[in-house]
Amino acid sequence: MSITLDRIMAVNAAYIRCIDTGALESWPDFFLDDCLYKVTTAENHKAGLAAGVIYADSKAMLSDRILALRQANVYEKQNYRHIVGLPNVIKNGGDTAECETPFIVVRIMHDGQTDVFATGVYLDTLRDTDGELKFAQRMVVCDSSRFDTLVALPL
Amino acid sequence: MSITLDRIMAVNAAYIRCIDTGALESWPDFFLDDCLYKVTTAENHKAGLAAGVIYADSKAMLSDRILALRQANVYEKQNYRHIVGLPNVIKNGGDTAECETPFIVVRIMHDGQTDVFATGVYLDTLRDTDGELKFAQRMVVCDSSRFDTLVALPL
Amino acid sequence: MSITLDRIMAVNAAYIRCIDTGALESWPDFFLDDCLYKVTTAENHKAGLAAGVIYADSKAMLSDRILALRQANVYEKQNYRHIVGLPNVIKNGGDTAECETPFIVVRIMHDGQTDVFATGVYLDTLRDTDGELKFAQRMVVCDSSRFDTLVALPL
Repeated sequence: MSITLDRIMAVNAAYIRCIDTGALESWPDFFLDDCLYKVTTAENHKAGLAAGVIYADSKAMLSDRILALRQANVYEKQNYRHIVGLPNVIKNGGDTAECETPFIVVRIMHDGQTDVFATGVYLDTLRDTDGELKFAQRMVVCDSSRFDTLVALPL
Repeated sequence: MSITLDRIMAVNAAYIRCIDTGALESWPDFFLDDCLYKVTTAENHKAGLAAGVIYADSKAMLSDRILALRQANVYEKQNYRHIVGLPNVIKNGGDTAECETPFIVVRIMHDGQTDVFATGVYLDTLRDTDGELKFAQRMVVCDSSRFDTLVALPL
Repeated sequence: MSITLDRIMAVNAAYIRCIDTGALESWPDFFLDDCLYKVTTAENHKAGLAAGVIYADSKAMLSDRILALRQANVYEKQNYRHIVGLPNVIKNGGDTAECETPFIVVRIMHDGQTDVFATGVYLDTLRDTDGELKFAQRMVVCDSSRFDTLVALPL
């Protein structure tokens, strides 16, 4: 028994759709109650540094983050367009799969300006719980360390 | 009965291959005779505006468009490279599937200059007709509204 | 009997992971002993020119190339992030599949600068040998001819 590639692709597709359509309040639902969500850089990840630009270890913390984002709302109006590549399934057995999936995020500013905002890889642990596939871990390892002060929307 | 993800991915892959290899005369064959093809912006789409930058409601109109493009041929020589992400299958039953698939288009000018030209999402209705999967609808919703005067090749 | 799309996607995903994680010594293992690996431009490919920017017709030549790359090491520190799109399976029967898969490569320089480095298409012949899927041919056709003096890492 293992998790099909179709389901792994589907949850990846749904995750970025959630962010890119602005449905941020639904974003925490992709995670288990106990989870690890972290945004870090390749350099820090390689050095084994635990701290990240963003760190949350529960779904509740993710919801708080979205709440804060909505209330603060100081960032310039912008949208992301994520493209995720084909997933690498590293381990797959029982109800759990470990995957690595590359991504590119293009940012579209209010005036239409379009830039490559971030690239990197998602290091994921996916778990099948009551027929739903959720993230036990999603570590967002960004290739460049330039972006960190700019992060407003989730990656 | 529903349409497999493999087939949905295959038709998406074939569609962009058709455009990016310059086989534009075959492009209308991806659509049903009665179809909706529209290029619009996220802003206009959100506002519920029916008009688009490009609008066609039949395969014949798409063929006309290619004919005009070939005859006019005024635009600077350029190529596109589309990358489509993983499809979101929103509805799937019987002979019809509704999908949302993100894309990024890079434009390569004659002198080799390479830019992100457009990003967005395809809002599709796919129908299985005599064993072939065709577009009943492909709405191309572009994230930025900057591009509109530049569109020469189909998206 | 034919090769499943899942396996074709998996080998594509693994290939770029190998390069983007810097595990270059493992890169030749994606190829058969007798193989064709070539990097060329769309223009040269269309003109039928056999020569490429990079050319190797055996796995041993690919290993030599990596060795030279590691020893020379003159190029500025940089990383690639490949995103491959959905594969087009052109032929598929027995132990062999012919595929065309578009790609985009973003280059991340040491200082964090991020650019679209190359786009193009992989023209592949994949062969199933003892249960493993390997490249008999991977022709890397780049859309722009601007890049050629810059190629350091494999594409």
